[in-house]
Amino acid sequence: MFVSEQIHTDVKMIENGSIADVKGFYTTGVHCGLKKNKLDLGLIYCDRPAEAAGVFTMNQIQAAPLRLTKQALNHSGQLQAVIVNSGNANAVTGKQGEADAKEMQQLLAEKLNVCDELVAVSSTGVIGEKLQMNKVRAGINALSIHTKPFAFAEAILTTDTATKEICVELIIDEQIVRIAGVAKGSGMIHPNMATMLGFLATDATIQAPALQQLLGEVTDQTFNRITVDGDCSTNDMVLALASKAVDHHVLSEQHPQWETFKYAFQLCATSLAKMIARDGEGATKLIEVNVSGAASDEEAGQVAKTIVGSDLVKTAVFGKDANWGRIIGAIGYSGCTIAPDKIDIAIGPYSTLVESEPCETNDAAITAYMTEEETIVFTLHLHIGDGIGKAWGCDLSYDYVRINAGYRT
Amino acid sequence: MFVSEQIHTDVKMIENGSIADVKGFYTTGVHCGLKKNKLDLGLIYCDRPAEAAGVFTMNQIQAAPLRLTKQALNHSGQLQAVIVNSGNANAVTGKQGEADAKEMQQLLAEKLNVCDELVAVSSTGVIGEKLQMNKVRAGINALSIHTKPFAFAEAILTTDTATKEICVELIIDEQIVRIAGVAKGSGMIHPNMATMLGFLATDATIQAPALQQLLGEVTDQTFNRITVDGDCSTNDMVLALASKAVDHHVLSEQHPQWETFKYAFQLCATSLAKMIARDGEGATKLIEVNVSGAASDEEAGQVAKTIVGSDLVKTAVFGKDANWGRIIGAIGYSGCTIAPDKIDIAIGPYSTLVESEPCETNDAAITAYMTEEETIVFTLHLHIGDGIGKAWGCDLSYDYVRINAGYRT
Repeated sequence: MFVSEQIHTDVKMIENGSIADVKGFYTTGVHCGLKKNKLDLGLIYCDRPAEAAGVFTMNQIQAAPLRLTKQALNHSGQLQAVIVNSGNANAVTGKQGEADAKEMQQLLAEKLNVCDELVAVSSTGVIGEKLQMNKVRAGINALSIHTKPFAFAEAILTTDTATKEICVELIIDEQIVRIAGVAKGSGMIHPNMATMLGFLATDATIQAPALQQLLGEVTDQTFNRITVDGDCSTNDMVLALASKAVDHHVLSEQHPQWETFKYAFQLCATSLAKMIARDGEGATKLIEVNVSGAASDEEAGQVAKTIVGSDLVKTAVFGKDANWGRIIGAIGYSGCTIAPDKIDIAIGPYSTLVESEPCETNDAAITAYMTEEETIVFTLHLHIGDGIGKAWGCDLSYDYVRINAGYRT
Repeated sequence: MFVSEQIHTDVKMIENGSIADVKGFYTTGVHCGLKKNKLDLGLIYCDRPAEAAGVFTMNQIQAAPLRLTKQALNHSGQLQAVIVNSGNANAVTGKQGEADAKEMQQLLAEKLNVCDELVAVSSTGVIGEKLQMNKVRAGINALSIHTKPFAFAEAILTTDTATKEICVELIIDEQIVRIAGVAKGSGMIHPNMATMLGFLATDATIQAPALQQLLGEVTDQTFNRITVDGDCSTNDMVLALASKAVDHHVLSEQHPQWETFKYAFQLCATSLAKMIARDGEGATKLIEVNVSGAASDEEAGQVAKTIVGSDLVKTAVFGKDANWGRIIGAIGYSGCTIAPDKIDIAIGPYSTLVESEPCETNDAAITAYMTEEETIVFTLHLHIGDGIGKAWGCDLSYDYVRINAGYRT
């Protein structure tokens, strides 16, 4: 079910690559004034209508731009442009918010000379404040796809500390195909409560339904594995666009190289998801939880997500404390099938619990591991079935509190 | 469904009252050395077998003392003593942990000259470390029911900053009856992930099945309303004991004063639950969420619990930030029926959202309210049905991180 951690020999990583390195795609960004100094308005443009797919927040409260983008996507399964603003989520902004999202779509469609329905709109930032449309209008006017391709990745950020991009290359039917992605951080302790945005683009030839199916499956194993179930923001979305600029046999499950393409696509999503988790607000560590022996892959993922969602586990990692009791506590309330007497837990290479009996541990060695490593790995075996699953999170630090106690000020 | 906030005229609060003020009951505590300096071993004793009821953690990983106490309770529905240690949860301690819990029960039963099955054992503290039984044995030996009644409330604490006790008095069939309770804090941001212990005692005459029914109902509205669903520790328990020392018609739903008794019992539980929430680790404020207009009382409670469980809401309260966007975000992922366009939210006396349209708010006034008040109240109307519900929590501060990053050290 999972892509192996080591890169497939057929898939090549493009260093410093981005969506702008994928045939047919252009990206750019400007500062329009929604944020004080930083870039805050970005554009992805495709030189033709791209096959498109999307996954959206499960939150019942959905921002106006997100609802509009869903409609656009449903119209024809194609998109040609994505406009994203940061600094304001345009969520819970009533009828004015709907009108503002629509105006953003229309203005961009006019500027690019495409139908409204080919334009997706995405917003991230504070909930409940009206968009300053004079600034957005001027910003849209200032966007130029011929300059500053790297500005897009920066323009979509909120409290993220770094841009998040990836680009890979592979061969399909002897043609070079690229897949690239860009994301903004959930910047959150329960990641999806703040807005997570992800955009994937490929020049491969694939139809919207196959792309949608692929995006759904891959999101479940990647972007949805950095969140606690149901903790999604009003604005979360991941869009995938395919320009079909490379001419090969149409990709589908029947294509002999489907698995390689899927692997490469999932690699992009996994990499972005891990970058998001690592850049959680105030985070000092990436936490990776690997569960095996669960009743099903789904339950394995659920157990892993429960652990990375536990504030007690997160603070223990921040404190470099080998407190595996908090891990087993979280397993117990995960709602999954377990045998309480058969659980194995390891922190990094160190076993701390075997068949639910505590091991003699060298706490100093574990603390050293937790101090030195960037990524703290918990490995669990539940000895119930064959289910395997992963999830990623980050630790909980003083800075998380500082950032969120004063976010609006 | 709820007891009114103002005290019923038939129920009198006993200032500084405790379980030791209830006929038939004795409490005490000692320092046995599981904690460095503080009291760490406590005893509740009844001079006769008391009718007993209990509610226990939903966590699938259950500590050895908790499993033993369940067995004792199931044996005859009676208990005569409860021994509690802090400093060590005796959870996930394998076969040795089971033997240690059993030995605590036996030693106390011997000392008090009662059957093993009349002794409940309860532990709280770090998970996964073996109990230092030499210290526990000496401590049990040192316990004396004739001294230090107030030591019990102190002996059960972990990171709590204050003891938590309540005692009320009411008249049943013209006899004075008392109900008292004592609890230890969950000391947690998701309260029930750390151990919550509650002990209620009354001298009223009531049989175990009626007491169990009452305790279950009341716990749902009180202790379970300071937690996020399913987030329970390995050791959570609430026990209720009735000495029947006051001679009146047996209490049951048929008794004309049942509602008064229920009211008083629930008042004790509500008070303890709020003390626990207020004393959450690092907390500076109590948060109370009142939901009305939900599809059912259960869903109202669920919405309220989701909000008090949101780290974003908690950090906003710590930052005195009127960030109602985070409240509606939590409503949206609560999993309950809502009409996204019909939600009202008030912070204290200030409306911030009416039918999902943002109000013109005076942020300075709301910040002043959040600065000055000890209890921050969010009032929500969902305009879906008649369901009402409450939940309590606390804010998330730097101190929460400090305490939990270094809990074991």
